[in-house]
Amino acid sequence: MNEIEENLEQFGLSVYEQIDKGRSPYMKIPQRGLGNVSFDESSRMLVLGDKHSKRYYMNVAHTRKFMQTLLVASYCRRLVEEGKHAGIRELYYALKHSIAGSRENTFDDQTESNAIAEDIEVSLDLLREQLNLTADRRGYMYGDIVIRDDGDEFNASRLGRGGWAVPGTVEDIEFPEVSAEYILVVETAAMADRLIEEKFAQNNGAIIIACQGQAPRGVRRLIHRLHYERNLPVIAFTDGDPYGWYIYSTIKQGSMNLAYLSKRLSVPDSKFVGMTMRDIEQYGLHSVTERLKSTDKSRIKELKSYEWFKHKKWQKELELCLKLGVRIEQQALANKSLEFVAKEYLPDKIEHKDFLP
Amino acid sequence: MNEIEENLEQFGLSVYEQIDKGRSPYMKIPQRGLGNVSFDESSRMLVLGDKHSKRYYMNVAHTRKFMQTLLVASYCRRLVEEGKHAGIRELYYALKHSIAGSRENTFDDQTESNAIAEDIEVSLDLLREQLNLTADRRGYMYGDIVIRDDGDEFNASRLGRGGWAVPGTVEDIEFPEVSAEYILVVETAAMADRLIEEKFAQNNGAIIIACQGQAPRGVRRLIHRLHYERNLPVIAFTDGDPYGWYIYSTIKQGSMNLAYLSKRLSVPDSKFVGMTMRDIEQYGLHSVTERLKSTDKSRIKELKSYEWFKHKKWQKELELCLKLGVRIEQQALANKSLEFVAKEYLPDKIEHKDFLP
Repeated sequence: MNEIEENLEQFGLSVYEQIDKGRSPYMKIPQRGLGNVSFDESSRMLVLGDKHSKRYYMNVAHTRKFMQTLLVASYCRRLVEEGKHAGIRELYYALKHSIAGSRENTFDDQTESNAIAEDIEVSLDLLREQLNLTADRRGYMYGDIVIRDDGDEFNASRLGRGGWAVPGTVEDIEFPEVSAEYILVVETAAMADRLIEEKFAQNNGAIIIACQGQAPRGVRRLIHRLHYERNLPVIAFTDGDPYGWYIYSTIKQGSMNLAYLSKRLSVPDSKFVGMTMRDIEQYGLHSVTERLKSTDKSRIKELKSYEWFKHKKWQKELELCLKLGVRIEQQALANKSLEFVAKEYLPDKIEHKDFLP
Repeated sequence: MNEIEENLEQFGLSVYEQIDKGRSPYMKIPQRGLGNVSFDESSRMLVLGDKHSKRYYMNVAHTRKFMQTLLVASYCRRLVEEGKHAGIRELYYALKHSIAGSRENTFDDQTESNAIAEDIEVSLDLLREQLNLTADRRGYMYGDIVIRDDGDEFNASRLGRGGWAVPGTVEDIEFPEVSAEYILVVETAAMADRLIEEKFAQNNGAIIIACQGQAPRGVRRLIHRLHYERNLPVIAFTDGDPYGWYIYSTIKQGSMNLAYLSKRLSVPDSKFVGMTMRDIEQYGLHSVTERLKSTDKSRIKELKSYEWFKHKKWQKELELCLKLGVRIEQQALANKSLEFVAKEYLPDKIEHKDFLP
């Protein structure tokens, strides 16, 4: 029995033992709400506090969730034992109406089973992926790294212009050979494709990871593993707007709703290369900015108030953005020339460590 | 000069020649609106009619679009000559404010440049991808096929559980070796990943292509090329709901807003394996259906009215859906067992050609 199975068995046993002793069984579940999330200065991550809730079988307000928690935990145990993976939507359907002899709708919709999966993840201090539950996937990877997965071995810079589609679960992947020197996380597929076409990965020793919007769990976990297991620095390259900057902060400090996963998904040493407000002046991009909408402005004010954006360089950046009243996208660099981003912008900024922290 | 360059040059020359003759130059642009789209019985595709508009330089209502069209066409010519590709967002930024000595905003937003790119595509009867313009990409591929792209050669069934990320442009890709026997287009990534884990591709000679929602252009073009160049039958597997069925119909007959591309993107011989309303009865899936919303119902009625859904089997399917008042997702099959879809559902239906047309 491996550690994960033991963990799950222990979870079930504790319920059995309480019943054996004639008690109303309960589970202790860490609270995941914002009231229990804070920014930890020493680890520089968003972390969960130690507030817990107790979930009692004999409390009618809890019984349904109690039942759901045991259903999901026992399903995960089966997955882990059989070495199978299930999507969280599969989990929902697999367990819906699954109590024999009853017409009870065990889950009304998937938000219920998703929440329970997160409860178990945080209670057992395990990644959902270690329980063989996979989230939806997005994103791809291109660069000089040999990947070993499921009996296959290939170099992620030898897959044409396509790159390797990053799966939802990257727990079992090995990296037998890494020649690249750092990871460049890129917000948009179009920009990643530009860099692939310009041979940026080859010429600069970079692994390009396209996250295609907010980085999905598989991509975040992959970045985390490559950083901590293979010492690769992480540099983020997003649009110069509050959404891009938040994508960066999620990679760096974690996200508020998955704060309990920060230590497994985030990389506090990440750096931000662009787009920045200073780029607009420095590279003469005034004519290709876009005006901020009022929702952008309120989002910027929110970011400004977050503890993990308190560094004076970020405060200045956010203030400048409000002052200029514009945003700037990665693709705007195409206004200089298609090659510009790969031949000048990124190499210059990276060589001179012209980063935001 | 290749055919594409000649085509673009001819486009420019015809404007020059009109000016030379002292005429107000114009371009003839096929209309792309729904009023010029119809279902063609003989080719079994959505096609564009022969209505045209004339775009005059000396008509103030046309001048701006005239200028935009020439800007985009000349940019495409440069791309093709230099063998470079640009995303449509890059195109937008590259050409914004690009008239020297003028502060004229050549494009107010990207919808303008997108529309012009489509105008040129349809006027020249070329794929945007042949003009080296790429759309955003999504989707991945897994199966026993050797792909040659950009100097690399690899087997798309030897990339671990990730699969090959399908690029936005697949024009230059070659298929030196195809051992798989058919293409299974799968709507959701979660289902594609299920099939990859169950070794469905290996055991059934299938190439799995995950389109992750409505199939993007790169994926549609790839399916089209594999079908016509390598004789691979195409089988679609989507959710059993109007959105899934429409994904199928786009792959099969083309889409209304890209009707002029049907002959390059669609595959009228495609078959539909599921999910169907009959599956609910046949496989006892009543407990894992979801109730139709009113928007679902109106969408079903729309589908019912489309000429290309007039086959009596589809009419029956759509009527049954309205009558049952439910939809059924691919993942619902997990209610039987995780293996069920790969070991029974798909092999049985495919062997018995239990398809909708």
